[in-house]
Amino acid sequence: MSVPPSAIMTDLYQLTMMQGYLETGLSDDEACFDLFFRSNPFGGGYTLFAGLEEALNFLEAMRFSAEDMEYLDSLGIFNKAFLDFLAGFKFTGDVHSPDEGCVVFPLEPVLRVTAPLYQCQLVETALLNIINFQTLIATKSARICQEAGHDNVIEFGLRRAQGVDGGLTASRAAYVGGCSGTSNMLAGKKYGIPVRGTHAHSWVTAFDSELEAFQKFAAIFPDNCILLVDTYDTLKSGVPNAIKTGLEMKGRGHKLLGIRLDSGDLAFLSIEARKALDAAGLHDTKIVASNELDENIIHDLKAQGAKIDIFGVGTRLVTGFGEPAITGVYKMSALRKKGGEWVNKLKLSEWAAKSSLPGVKQVWRMKEADGTMMADLIEMDGEKPDFSQGVWGHHPILDYQKKFYDNVAGAEPMLKPVMTGGKAAKHRPALKEIREHARQSLSALHHTTKRLLNPHRYKVSLGQNLNDITMKMREEGKE
Amino acid sequence: MSVPPSAIMTDLYQLTMMQGYLETGLSDDEACFDLFFRSNPFGGGYTLFAGLEEALNFLEAMRFSAEDMEYLDSLGIFNKAFLDFLAGFKFTGDVHSPDEGCVVFPLEPVLRVTAPLYQCQLVETALLNIINFQTLIATKSARICQEAGHDNVIEFGLRRAQGVDGGLTASRAAYVGGCSGTSNMLAGKKYGIPVRGTHAHSWVTAFDSELEAFQKFAAIFPDNCILLVDTYDTLKSGVPNAIKTGLEMKGRGHKLLGIRLDSGDLAFLSIEARKALDAAGLHDTKIVASNELDENIIHDLKAQGAKIDIFGVGTRLVTGFGEPAITGVYKMSALRKKGGEWVNKLKLSEWAAKSSLPGVKQVWRMKEADGTMMADLIEMDGEKPDFSQGVWGHHPILDYQKKFYDNVAGAEPMLKPVMTGGKAAKHRPALKEIREHARQSLSALHHTTKRLLNPHRYKVSLGQNLNDITMKMREEGKE
Repeated sequence: MSVPPSAIMTDLYQLTMMQGYLETGLSDDEACFDLFFRSNPFGGGYTLFAGLEEALNFLEAMRFSAEDMEYLDSLGIFNKAFLDFLAGFKFTGDVHSPDEGCVVFPLEPVLRVTAPLYQCQLVETALLNIINFQTLIATKSARICQEAGHDNVIEFGLRRAQGVDGGLTASRAAYVGGCSGTSNMLAGKKYGIPVRGTHAHSWVTAFDSELEAFQKFAAIFPDNCILLVDTYDTLKSGVPNAIKTGLEMKGRGHKLLGIRLDSGDLAFLSIEARKALDAAGLHDTKIVASNELDENIIHDLKAQGAKIDIFGVGTRLVTGFGEPAITGVYKMSALRKKGGEWVNKLKLSEWAAKSSLPGVKQVWRMKEADGTMMADLIEMDGEKPDFSQGVWGHHPILDYQKKFYDNVAGAEPMLKPVMTGGKAAKHRPALKEIREHARQSLSALHHTTKRLLNPHRYKVSLGQNLNDITMKMREEGKE
Repeated sequence: MSVPPSAIMTDLYQLTMMQGYLETGLSDDEACFDLFFRSNPFGGGYTLFAGLEEALNFLEAMRFSAEDMEYLDSLGIFNKAFLDFLAGFKFTGDVHSPDEGCVVFPLEPVLRVTAPLYQCQLVETALLNIINFQTLIATKSARICQEAGHDNVIEFGLRRAQGVDGGLTASRAAYVGGCSGTSNMLAGKKYGIPVRGTHAHSWVTAFDSELEAFQKFAAIFPDNCILLVDTYDTLKSGVPNAIKTGLEMKGRGHKLLGIRLDSGDLAFLSIEARKALDAAGLHDTKIVASNELDENIIHDLKAQGAKIDIFGVGTRLVTGFGEPAITGVYKMSALRKKGGEWVNKLKLSEWAAKSSLPGVKQVWRMKEADGTMMADLIEMDGEKPDFSQGVWGHHPILDYQKKFYDNVAGAEPMLKPVMTGGKAAKHRPALKEIREHARQSLSALHHTTKRLLNPHRYKVSLGQNLNDITMKMREEGKE
């Protein structure tokens, strides 16, 4: 996140309700909220969870500054007792979540926040903002990298991103999802992501001829030379001039690393350019392609036999083209008086798909003997099902549909404590570890679930106990 | 913009090229670059220009910090002379642009940047990022507000925005485009935008009953009470409980400002809720509606006779749903040696629509006698056409298509100096003025151009001189 973690990064109604909770004596009540997604983005079969590290940073550091307090006071909405209370605000709750970089699925809590009710409420907006966006882009990146092949995608979306921060944190999430580098210097500096780049059309138009522009670039960057060949005419001018430059470089003991195609029919041009490069003996010179690429176009280019080694992906990656917002929501699942028992809570809706699941829950990931993910089971926390005996899993919405899972080779609890009493756990994985974790998590997912079109639906079921509680509450029609 | 204006907010290749320009002796050459859009977003008939103020702030303040320099050095790509040069970097160029909040059209320069070539290059990424995103959202906001009616839209998108800054600057742009308020406290504080809000479902689930939750809220906020009525059942529970609460408030001399619908069939529910409120004598209680709204849904709700007074619009506004990135590009149009004459420059492309226009240009907005906008004419700068005699306008791409504009009642130059020698002009309009300017600019546009579906195409033509130069260069096939 590119802005200081200010507690004022919230919606007005969170503060209004917070004052209300304090005035009605509910402020000591402890609540449990789940952040979960209603569906996988892009019509895909999975969601890649990202943003946890930044969410925890936010929770640890969020405060109201003197300037914030002045602004809040100026609105004339809040009373003095409440403002004094805010001035000393610190988040003191607990957070459970899966490892950042895990694949997750609709309805599963990806953050389980337990804290005084008013705190749970105040942090909603920021948590949704951070987790929604980074998860969206990490998922898009995973889809793109899956089609392009591992380590073959460079992100260069900053210029079309939704704001500076939309570019900066998109670069981070794109890296988690599998991109090998970024053009974004700010992201390179802040996150240590490898930075990559070539040159623009203006480099070519700045010189008297394309050949001169290429030769000058090669002379200045002999070890890092990728030439953009579509300023005038790709096959008639750009590629021949690049080949001439590449052969001159070869003569001086250097290598033309690549050429870049940025317009036109990339399948046709890459095949023709490859032929020309090979014919000139420049077999090692790679072909980089860019121009409004995404997972579907890359899939199609590969199917046509395009000879592209590296894909530069910008706009459609960093804006989550096709579905620019993921459906993350944050709902209360339980409430307890100080020292009391949890009371389960539920939000109903005219649309069953918009309802939430009650209770403090755990998510179990069941695996096949070969390590492949079998299905996930959501159950009440603290009740570990006996997987060795097989377990019943209930459809989360359709009451009559259930399934018996046997031959469960192993089951892992997904929600782990990552913050206790407002302090994040000591071990915080580095960004590279998160990226590697994502790679492993994706590899445990059956390939039919990763298909772009009509993917196989990975099952998320409710355990017996959670199902009984949920059905009873739905029938009663209220919390 | 929510982050400090660091010069490192750029793509690697800008720095690579910059070092190249310095080494090849091109660094003293002065260039002219145009930032323009290739098409109107959302299939609409216009684009609302926004982000200028933040772009100028960026240009004035951009520097490489000591930390930036350390990072750049660590990459091992740049030589010492270049790094020393960067350490003292300041933008010293000139910028011309239309007033922020103007409607603009494809191919027209919205920023004309004249500066040493290496400076023009370095600022490209940041300028595109800032102008692209704010213009996208201001345009979306204008489309939504046009359907909803003036002052009837509140933006509450922060939780689904693309990053913190995606939320913050989106709130600014949404306000420019016509929204009357935001839920985003950070935007309220930073930009002085009015903040608005109600309460969430969790307020209702936190109490033992919906009625108790409403009564408590009304007691705490008697002057600012809008009740969310869809937590359990909108018509059977939410609306009756809100009416009961509203009548109690009335008895105490207060007023229930509104109820909010957030799910279900908003057309049906709003009509039924209106009937119930009116039957209870609560004629002044407004109906607020939210739930994935955009200009098309609002248009449709109105057509069905929905009784909605205020529209809360979030996700689909702040992410530019439907087209999450506008097609802004930044191309070199002219270059001159120190003290020399401008040489026109052009980027050709296999696709004519991806070509740029050469030369240092001005945009003239021609008006009808009643003040309605007639058409825009792009011509070489310094050559004011004699509009009193009528002027020829040429289609920017189709050579054979031209049109004679007579009865031009007035013509105004759109590009005005807003920055000279790196210093922004003294008069900087306040955000409210920019918003008012947008309202006026939109009102001068014929209503058929503002239609959502298949809008009338507002004409942008090339003046005789620019057309001659462009055609000649296109025929020669290179710069």
